[in-house]
Amino acid sequence: MNINLKETVDLLKKNDKFLIILHQSPDGDTTGSGFALYYSLIQLGKRVMLKCSDPFSKKYDYLYNDYNHCEFDPDFIVSVDIADKQLIGDSLKQYRDNIDLAIDHHQSNTFYAKKTFLNSSASANCEIMFDLLSMLGVNLNKNIVNGLYTGITTDTGCFKFSNTSANTHIVAAKLIQLGADYIYINKIMFDTKSKSRIMIEQRVLNNIKFFNNDRIAVIYITRKMLENCSLEDGELDGLATLPKQIEGVDVGITLKEREDGAFKISVRTSEKTNASDICKNFNGGGHSRAGGCLINKDLDEAIEMLVEVSKKAIGE
Amino acid sequence: MNINLKETVDLLKKNDKFLIILHQSPDGDTTGSGFALYYSLIQLGKRVMLKCSDPFSKKYDYLYNDYNHCEFDPDFIVSVDIADKQLIGDSLKQYRDNIDLAIDHHQSNTFYAKKTFLNSSASANCEIMFDLLSMLGVNLNKNIVNGLYTGITTDTGCFKFSNTSANTHIVAAKLIQLGADYIYINKIMFDTKSKSRIMIEQRVLNNIKFFNNDRIAVIYITRKMLENCSLEDGELDGLATLPKQIEGVDVGITLKEREDGAFKISVRTSEKTNASDICKNFNGGGHSRAGGCLINKDLDEAIEMLVEVSKKAIGE
Repeated sequence: MNINLKETVDLLKKNDKFLIILHQSPDGDTTGSGFALYYSLIQLGKRVMLKCSDPFSKKYDYLYNDYNHCEFDPDFIVSVDIADKQLIGDSLKQYRDNIDLAIDHHQSNTFYAKKTFLNSSASANCEIMFDLLSMLGVNLNKNIVNGLYTGITTDTGCFKFSNTSANTHIVAAKLIQLGADYIYINKIMFDTKSKSRIMIEQRVLNNIKFFNNDRIAVIYITRKMLENCSLEDGELDGLATLPKQIEGVDVGITLKEREDGAFKISVRTSEKTNASDICKNFNGGGHSRAGGCLINKDLDEAIEMLVEVSKKAIGE
Repeated sequence: MNINLKETVDLLKKNDKFLIILHQSPDGDTTGSGFALYYSLIQLGKRVMLKCSDPFSKKYDYLYNDYNHCEFDPDFIVSVDIADKQLIGDSLKQYRDNIDLAIDHHQSNTFYAKKTFLNSSASANCEIMFDLLSMLGVNLNKNIVNGLYTGITTDTGCFKFSNTSANTHIVAAKLIQLGADYIYINKIMFDTKSKSRIMIEQRVLNNIKFFNNDRIAVIYITRKMLENCSLEDGELDGLATLPKQIEGVDVGITLKEREDGAFKISVRTSEKTNASDICKNFNGGGHSRAGGCLINKDLDEAIEMLVEVSKKAIGE
């Protein structure tokens, strides 16, 4: 059942022992939403714990400083930024069918929870958390505003992606006025690379391939290239956008070798070409500008097949 | 003489034949300010021309669509985003001592103009242009809001740098509401790289050097590395921030070989080290986090000298 802001606030006020669930592979938006809600409910004297089927990411550790985990039997379970109950993850599967409230901004939300507060026009779940926590009447302290700013800036690529709206900026302005550490947060999120990431970028750029008068660009990451790099989870994030960023490229292709030797393919296209159509040739799919598929061939053969299909897609 | 917003608006209203001057090596802020002012004054029925001692950058060509250049004798000369008259550039030096009005946001403004409207708390000159053009009462059409958004997003690194304030976001929200093509503009400014830039990044990463347990990182660009790259002006922008972006690096050093064989050095430091102090050893200077100097030695020797001084600066 879909509920509104006021009804959501009432539910949060009248319950006492909360479990907040983040989605698996937690990003800045689910983490920021979860911790902002945690610090708000604690202020109201509630008992609250947070759970995630994967470890909290080190990247957001500035949000955990004042978090104390205590186990207890919750009487109200809230999921934040979770579109489908499968995304809760296996290790928390006992909660999948018992979510009392989902707070979410994904249009694809499957209404798995007993009650759902959904605003799919929001750039980030943290954008609606701001309205919610404001109406809840808590003091939006540094922990809370840092959580909310983290979710908004990471989900919008620092106000760059098309989900950014005028309201996103208005909320950001308020969070800055309330003391969010936005300079620090943006530095960590967007201006810091690990040495391993730099090493991988070097290897990837050394092997970049162009086809069709540079309208098709291909990069790949084999398991051999990852040797001696000691990459952590998430350190390859965003690499698939690299070939498409190059001026004049209409199809950007990234091949990533899996443990079993097959290649996971990401395709990014300009408005002139449909990425999903390209991937459908290999039983994949996706959206018009971003698609994916799996190819179980050796590297050269996989590239040749992808380039062949891409040439047709760009009409040459 | 420093004047306020109202006085500035009155000056713009009462004059008729305008020359607007951008600073040399025009960036998004001077270009956006200049064109936003151009389209505003044209609406008021004025004659207006824009000049810059360097060619307008192709990167901002979406701002030039409705610009018609006509030569005439101006009766009022306005500089935008220009802190010092030297930055007007040699080819426009006849105007250096005849600027009627400077609209600027640099704290370092030298008050070279007859009248100066300065707001050094603004992230970008375009942030104050927004107030100015709003008070001028023109219709903030697409050309104007795209100019203003361009200046703000480029000067703040897309709302990432420390000059970003709550007001910056409030102005951005208004510009988006007024129809600024912010998705397109951010894509061009932050998500597009030329093939030459990619080639240079590849060569730079292949030669990156680490010292002192990776607390010092050094990159260099020799003239030989630029061969076959056909780089245009501005394509090396931002490269000097690369070594400092690496996790754990306290001193990031970039050496760029000049035509005469000397190396132009950029130093970026974490809060633990003073960049200006490092550069002073080589008769350079700068700010605490960013400094520069010139070293006329061969590459290896220059690196050795810089690393030696940097080691001392980080206290090891």
